Amino acid sequence: MSEAQSPQDSGEEDATEALYALRPGVVKAICEALADGRAMRVRRLVLPLHYTDVADLLERLNSDERRQVVELVRGRFNPEVLTELDQAVREEVVEYLGPEGLAAAVTELASDDAVELIDELDDAVQQQVLEAIPAEERVILEEALAFPEDSAGRLMQRELVAVPSFWTVGETIDHLRDSTDLPNEFYDIYVVDPKHQPVGTIRLSRLLRTRRPVRVRDIMEPDMKVIPAAIDQEEVAQIFRQHDLVSAPVADEGGRLVGAITIDDVVDVIDEEHEEDLMRLGGVKEDDLYRAAIATTRARFAWLLVNLATAILASVVIAMFEGTIEQIVALAVLMPIVASMGGNAGTQTLTVAVRALAMKELTPTNALRIVGKEVIVGGFNGILFAALTGMVAAVWFQSPPLGLVMAAAMVFNMIVAGLAGTLIPLGLERLRIDPAVASSVFLTTVTDVVGFFAFLGLAALFLL
Amino acid sequence: MSEAQSPQDSGEEDATEALYALRPGVVKAICEALADGRAMRVRRLVLPLHYTDVADLLERLNSDERRQVVELVRGRFNPEVLTELDQAVREEVVEYLGPEGLAAAVTELASDDAVELIDELDDAVQQQVLEAIPAEERVILEEALAFPEDSAGRLMQRELVAVPSFWTVGETIDHLRDSTDLPNEFYDIYVVDPKHQPVGTIRLSRLLRTRRPVRVRDIMEPDMKVIPAAIDQEEVAQIFRQHDLVSAPVADEGGRLVGAITIDDVVDVIDEEHEEDLMRLGGVKEDDLYRAAIATTRARFAWLLVNLATAILASVVIAMFEGTIEQIVALAVLMPIVASMGGNAGTQTLTVAVRALAMKELTPTNALRIVGKEVIVGGFNGILFAALTGMVAAVWFQSPPLGLVMAAAMVFNMIVAGLAGTLIPLGLERLRIDPAVASSVFLTTVTDVVGFFAFLGLAALFLL
Repeated sequence: MSEAQSPQDSGEEDATEALYALRPGVVKAICEALADGRAMRVRRLVLPLHYTDVADLLERLNSDERRQVVELVRGRFNPEVLTELDQAVREEVVEYLGPEGLAAAVTELASDDAVELIDELDDAVQQQVLEAIPAEERVILEEALAFPEDSAGRLMQRELVAVPSFWTVGETIDHLRDSTDLPNEFYDIYVVDPKHQPVGTIRLSRLLRTRRPVRVRDIMEPDMKVIPAAIDQEEVAQIFRQHDLVSAPVADEGGRLVGAITIDDVVDVIDEEHEEDLMRLGGVKEDDLYRAAIATTRARFAWLLVNLATAILASVVIAMFEGTIEQIVALAVLMPIVASMGGNAGTQTLTVAVRALAMKELTPTNALRIVGKEVIVGGFNGILFAALTGMVAAVWFQSPPLGLVMAAAMVFNMIVAGLAGTLIPLGLERLRIDPAVASSVFLTTVTDVVGFFAFLGLAALFLL
Repeated sequence: MSEAQSPQDSGEEDATEALYALRPGVVKAICEALADGRAMRVRRLVLPLHYTDVADLLERLNSDERRQVVELVRGRFNPEVLTELDQAVREEVVEYLGPEGLAAAVTELASDDAVELIDELDDAVQQQVLEAIPAEERVILEEALAFPEDSAGRLMQRELVAVPSFWTVGETIDHLRDSTDLPNEFYDIYVVDPKHQPVGTIRLSRLLRTRRPVRVRDIMEPDMKVIPAAIDQEEVAQIFRQHDLVSAPVADEGGRLVGAITIDDVVDVIDEEHEEDLMRLGGVKEDDLYRAAIATTRARFAWLLVNLATAILASVVIAMFEGTIEQIVALAVLMPIVASMGGNAGTQTLTVAVRALAMKELTPTNALRIVGKEVIVGGFNGILFAALTGMVAAVWFQSPPLGLVMAAAMVFNMIVAGLAGTLIPLGLERLRIDPAVASSVFLTTVTDVVGFFAFLGLAALFLL
C-alpha cells in the first residue's frame, strides 16, 4: 500500500501532495541534518526514498548540499536517480560520482538509459567510463551510440523477448521462466522469422489467457508497426500517439529486430518535445530553472539581441515619419496600439499553426484552406477592432479623420497578421527550420513594421 | 508485418510517412470516389483502414465528405474512431451517427472512453443515448459520470483484474484463461484484501515468469501508488511522470479498488494539458484548427479585447508626455525599443516560470531563490543591452544625454521584467488562477507601462 495512504500521515492535503512529490518536511529534515553534519541521519533519511524522490530531493538542494548527499550515499546510490534528474543537476551529480562511480551506475541501467547518460559526457570522461565497463556491456553501448542522436535506435532498449513462430505458448512460458537475462519489464513479446525479422507481436495478457499447446503464430498480431532504427524520436512519439501503441519493435536497415521501444520512454520524449516547443516560442533555449544566473544570462542574450535588431528596424520605420509625428503628436500616442494588436492577433494564429505542424495536423493538403481561414479571421477581428479603436482615436483626439486612418491601418495589419501567422511557420517548416524557434521573431517584425508603416504612412498621406 | 514495410510501397519516404500518418494517395482516392458517387469503392477503401487512420481521414475531409463517409460505413463504423477525433470534428460525426448509432458505439467502448464521449453531449441527447443502452452498462456509465470532470474517476477504466492475496500464480492464470469479461488489454493485476482494498500489484511479466504453486502475495509489489478517484487528471499525469508508472489502481473514498488508469490514457492527458498551456500562453482558448472562421473569430475576440485595454493603458502613459515628445521627436522613435526589450525578456522568464509551475518544479520552497535569480539575470542583460541601445541612441541622434536616458530606462525595465515574469505567475498560482491564462497580458502591461514611463519620464526630467 502506498505510503501516502498509510495512517501515520499528518493530513489529507499532505497525503495528496505525497502522491506526486517529496514531502517538504522530508527535505527540511535532510537539510537540517546536513547543516548539523549528522551523516548517519542523512543516510537514514535518504536511503529509503524511491529513486524518483531522491532525484526530486537533489534538484531542490543547493550545490553544496547536493555534493554532500551524493558523497554520503555513494556506495548505495541507485543509478535510476540519474535518469530522473534535470540535465543541469545531472551534470553536477555525474561529476561528484566520478568515472568509476559512473561506470558502476551505467552497468546497472537498461541500455537506453545508459546510452543517454554516456552520450552527455565530455569525450574524455566518456572514454574513461567506457573503459571501466565490462567488454560485453561496452559493445552494446558502443553499438547504440553509433545511432544518430535523438533517433529511435538511441531510444530503444536492446533487452527484449523474441521467440520463433513455431513455438507453442507453453514453450514460450517455460522459456520466460528459465531465462535469466530478460528485461525487467516488458509488455509484449515479439515473434521472429529465421532471419530474425519481426513477423508479429503478442500482448502478455493474450499470452497469459491462451492454453499451452497453442502455437504463438496463431495468436500473434501480424499487423504491427515496425519502427526503423534511424528515424527521429519525435516521429516515434507521433507513431505511438497515432496508433495508440504501448510498445513497438525496432528494426535495422536489413529489417532485423534490434530492440524495442516502450511507451514510458515515449512519454519522456513527449514531455521533452513539449518543453522544447514551449521554450522556443517563449524565446528560451531550454528550461534553465536550475542553471546559474550567468549561464542563464548568456543563453538568453542571443535571443534578445535578435529581438533588438527587429525593434531597431521598427524604429527606423518610425524615423521615416519623424516630420509627420512632429506635426501630429497624437500619432506617437496611438501607434503602439496598431502594432500591438497585430502582434497579439498574429501570435494567436502562430500558436495554433506551430502546434498543428508539430502534431502533423497542418499538412500540404490543408495548408491553403487554413491560411485562407486565418486571413478571414484576421479580417473579421480587424473590422471589429478597427471600429473600436477608430472610435477611441476619433473621440480622444477630437479628430474623425485620425479615427479613419487608425481603423484602416488596424484592418490592414490584422489581415497581415493572419497571413504572416500561418505563412511564416509553414515557410520555416518547408526550409526544415523548426517553426517554434524562429516564427515569433519574424512575426513581430512583420506586424510592427507593417503596423507602424501603415498607420504613419496613411496619416502622412491624408492628415497633413 | 507493417504495411509500411511491405514491398508494394512506392518509395522510402512514403514508407516512413505511412508509419505516422495516412498516405495522401489514399485520401485523394477516397475524395475522388466520393465525388464520383462510387459508394462501393469508398467502402472498399475506408473499411480496411486502422481506426486511427479513419479518424485521420475524417479530420482531413470537408464537412460534406465527412457526412458521406459516415453514412456509407455506418453499419460497420468502429467506435474507437470517435476517441481519436479532434473535438470539433467529433461533434459533427456524433451528429451524423444519431442517438442509436451512438448508443451502439458507446456500448462497445471501454468505460473510460464511453464516459468521455457521453460527457460531451448536450443533456437531451445524453439522455436519449443513455436510455438506448442496456441497463447494466448504463449503471456503470452513470457511476462514472458522477465523478467530477477531469478527475481520476473519469479517466480510469472499470475493467480490471483483481485477485485475493491467498491465490496462487496457477489459480490466477487459470482464472485469466477462463474469464470472459476481462479488459482487452492490461499490464498489471491487482491483489486485494477481503475489503476489496488494493494491497499490491503484479506485473504480467512477473506473473508469467513465476511457477504455478507460488502465492501471489509473495510476488506482489506492495509499495504502489494508489490514486484517489477524486483527484484531478493533471495530478494523475504528474504522479505517473514522477514515479515512472505504467498503470495504477484507483480507489474510492473508502479505499476500495474501483478502477485502473493506464499510461495510454495519461499520454492523452499530457498532450491535452500541454496544448492547454501552449494555447493559453499564446492567447488562444483552444486548438481551433478545425473550427469555422466565425467561431474562431468569436473565441479569439475576448483575448484581443483584453489586450486592447492594456495597449490603451500604455498609450495613456505616452499621452502624459505629449509635450516632451513634441520637443524631442526622437523619443517617439526610440520608445518602442525599451518597451519591446522588456516584453521579450519578461516573456523568457515567464515561459520558464509557467512551465516550472506546471511541472511542480517551482514550489514555495525555492520561489524566493528563483525570483532572485531572475532579477539578477534581468540586471545582467539589462546592463548589456543598456550599453548597446544607449550607444545606438547617442550615435543615431547625436546626443549622449539621450543615450544615457535610454540606457537607464533599459536597465530598469529589464529588472522589472525579471521580477514581473516570476511574481505574476506565482501570484496567479496562489490565487488559484492558471498562470498560463493570464500571465502574459499582465506581463506586457507592466513592461509597456514601466518602459514608456521610465524612458519618457527620465527624458522629461533630464533632457528638456
